[in-house]
Formats: sequence, C-alpha cells, structure tokens
Amino acid sequence: MVTKQEIKLIKSLNQKKYRQQLGLFTVEGIKGIEEFLNSEFKLHRLYTTKQIFNASKIDTIEISENDLKKITSLKNPNTALAIFEIPKSLKTEGDGLVIALDDVRDPGNLGTIIRLCDWYGVKNLVCSQNTVDCYNSKVVQATMGSLKRVNISYVDLFEFIESYKGEVFGTYMNGQNIYNADLPNEGIVVLGNEANGISEKISSLIYKKLTIPQFGQSEDTESLNVANATAIVLSEFRRRTIET
Amino acid sequence: MVTKQEIKLIKSLNQKKYRQQLGLFTVEGIKGIEEFLNSEFKLHRLYTTKQIFNASKIDTIEISENDLKKITSLKNPNTALAIFEIPKSLKTEGDGLVIALDDVRDPGNLGTIIRLCDWYGVKNLVCSQNTVDCYNSKVVQATMGSLKRVNISYVDLFEFIESYKGEVFGTYMNGQNIYNADLPNEGIVVLGNEANGISEKISSLIYKKLTIPQFGQSEDTESLNVANATAIVLSEFRRRTIET
Repeated sequence: MVTKQEIKLIKSLNQKKYRQQLGLFTVEGIKGIEEFLNSEFKLHRLYTTKQIFNASKIDTIEISENDLKKITSLKNPNTALAIFEIPKSLKTEGDGLVIALDDVRDPGNLGTIIRLCDWYGVKNLVCSQNTVDCYNSKVVQATMGSLKRVNISYVDLFEFIESYKGEVFGTYMNGQNIYNADLPNEGIVVLGNEANGISEKISSLIYKKLTIPQFGQSEDTESLNVANATAIVLSEFRRRTIET
Repeated sequence: MVTKQEIKLIKSLNQKKYRQQLGLFTVEGIKGIEEFLNSEFKLHRLYTTKQIFNASKIDTIEISENDLKKITSLKNPNTALAIFEIPKSLKTEGDGLVIALDDVRDPGNLGTIIRLCDWYGVKNLVCSQNTVDCYNSKVVQATMGSLKRVNISYVDLFEFIESYKGEVFGTYMNGQNIYNADLPNEGIVVLGNEANGISEKISSLIYKKLTIPQFGQSEDTESLNVANATAIVLSEFRRRTIET
C-alpha cells in the first residue's frame, strides 16, 4: 500500500525544487529500474505491482495497479516505480571532448543528447543552470539508462568556459562548414537553446563557430533540432579520430 | 462558432482511417498554418480566435477560445486550427538519395526524419504501409513545414526496393563502419523499426549493411534512436558530395 504521505512525496518529485531539496528522483518501468539497480545509484524505495525483482536482495513495496496509477507520471505506467538518490556530481575534469548546453529546455532533447554522449564516449556533459534538470522524469525516461554513464554537471557556464584551457567550439547558422573544419580530440562544444541558439554572453567565449551546411534548396527550412545537431557534431568529431 | 458536426469531423481527423476517407488533415498554430498557406496545399477550412490572417484573401471562421479547446488536439492550443486537403503523393522517381522507412512507428521520429530530409535535400521519402501516417497531427506538428517540401509515399516497401535499379543500403548493428564505407550520390537507405530494426524480408534485399560505430565503452548502451541514426547517415552521405 502507498500512504497519502508517500503519494505526496512522490508527486513532489515532479518538481525540480523538491528533487533538489530531497536529493531524490523517480524512475519508472522495469527495464529502466533494472538499469539503475545495476549501477552506482542508491535505491531509496521501490514500488511494484508484481514481485519481479530479486526480493532477497532488494526491498520492494508491493502495491496495487490502482496505487501505481496514483504515483505514476506516465499515461501508461509499467509495473514499477522506483525512487533513487541523486548522486553528487563529480567535478568535470574537462579532459577529452566535453559537450556544453546553453539553456536547452526540452526534456526529450536533453535525454537524447545524454544518449548520444554515451554512444560517442563523451564522459562529461556540462549544462547551464537554466538547462532542463537531468533528473526530470521525462529526461530519465528518454535516456534509457545512459544517465548513469555520463557525468552531468550544472554550472555557471560562462565561468566554466572562461577558465577552460582548451579550444571552444559552438554551432551557428553562419560558421565554418563542419565537414571541412579541423576538429581536435578534445575541447568544449557548445550547443544552444532551441529557439535562440547560443546566448551572446557565451558566444563571446567561442573560439570557432561551426555550421552544419544545409543541402536542401529551400530558404524556409527550419534549422536542425538541437538533438540532431548534437548527433551530427559528435559524429564529425569522432570520425576524425579513426583512420580512414 | 463551431457546430457539433464540425467538432465531430475535426476530431475524426485524429484517426488515419478518417483522414484517408475524407482526404483531409489538420494543422495547428499560426506559424504552421502560414507555412501550409504559402504552399501547394489546398485549404479546406480555417478556424481562428483572432483575425490574424489576410481576410480578403482567405476565408476564415472566427471562433471563441472555448470552441478552439473543443477542436484542438493540443494541450495548449495556439489561436488557430486549419484543415487542409491531403495531396495525391507523386510517384517516387527514385533518382537521387531516397530514404526508406521500414515500420517506423513514432510520430516524433517520423516528423524529425522529414525535417532531416528537407535539410539534407532528400526529395523522396518512402514508407512501408505500417509506418506512422505523415498526416498524423503529431507528425505535422513536428515537421515544422518540411512536410510540404518532401515527397512522401506509402508503398509496398519490398516491391519498391525489389524493382529499384540502384544500390540499397541499410543500417544495422553489425555492418560496415559507415565512416569508411563508399557512399554514392544516389541509392536507397533503409532505416528500421524502433524496437526491431529492419525486418528480415526487407533485409534480404539490402546490398550494403552500414553501422554507426559506438565510441563509448559500455555494453549496456542502447543503440541510437532511429531519428539520430538518420541524422548521422544523411550527414555521411552528403559530406562525401562536397570537396574537402
């Protein structure tokens, strides 16, 4: 059974303020929960409608389908909801390739970008304070477990970049063609807000402006979505590291 | 005002069956509607809460905010809803680079792929019959107008590929590294279903299997989302066409 107090607590975790206050976040669905159980993340509580987890090792709270409906933030909840502790984020060392996000607001975009970092072996993802919280349930849902393999920190992005010693890249509509550009093994690549791109303040620190050229002929074409731009940027940086 | 009959008709357009029967689809929001008004698409009806469109040229039906709520399929409707006629899809000529989708089910993925085709100048997108309908309102919303610049056809994908004379590529987990592969200016590239990839039947027709290599070290990493895979595949095919 789930008490009223527990429902209130779980619901409160839909808000960043309470996640930060309590140091907790939720994960839903068997597959996602198993990913987090097999990781460094510490389990706080696990609610499930079926005893599918190894009960000798993991304390679970059995609940009804009806109770699950009361605590889920999904339209179609799937069997279980877990609460995990938010780990302290490691200090970003800044070696290797670092992706930096300047006010990315859409949870689906952030989730996709985290997965891309995981795929392309980017260990550090640095986010401006106004970037959507990576423990937002929609982000957690979209990352499919990559969240535990990428070190994500929220920082004063201007200060972070200003004190960085290496090269700083950013994506723009009017920069150098990325396909011809010299791209090193390490550096920071900044991607900007969905509507406004990279802010002026951050732009003042950007060493090299990169552009993914448009091949279609229409002037009306919308610029690439930030998650797709990240996919192409990472693809370009990484392919230069392999012999062709 | 909107009559009950009109509400019923508009609501019915949320279903593919009725869109096909009636040959109509909906577009919501001022920006999206303007994109479609400035195109070959024929307007059927335009409902709006404010007279923002050029009334001397376009017949609009003024409605209340309350009426808009009755006909919208969005959580936060934006000023206007238009019904357009679905055009007859052109026969796919099959020259140039063609993207083919084998049962892509997610509207957001299809919308993103249409935008990518627009950006990378891919004129023809061919979909299996089970791929999500491109006039689904979520797809229309996600394409941001690219829908009118890419010729999309729903075909028997096996027959289409079998009768195609050029080279046929597909993305797999165990194919040739795409960064080293010879990629021509034209051909078909097949991308598969979100959960199952390319079906066995279609695979039997695929000339060259391509893989986007993983750079991260974890075996648990989920494969790339089909929209991101499309972004990287198009980036690779197109960059080969420019001098470096």
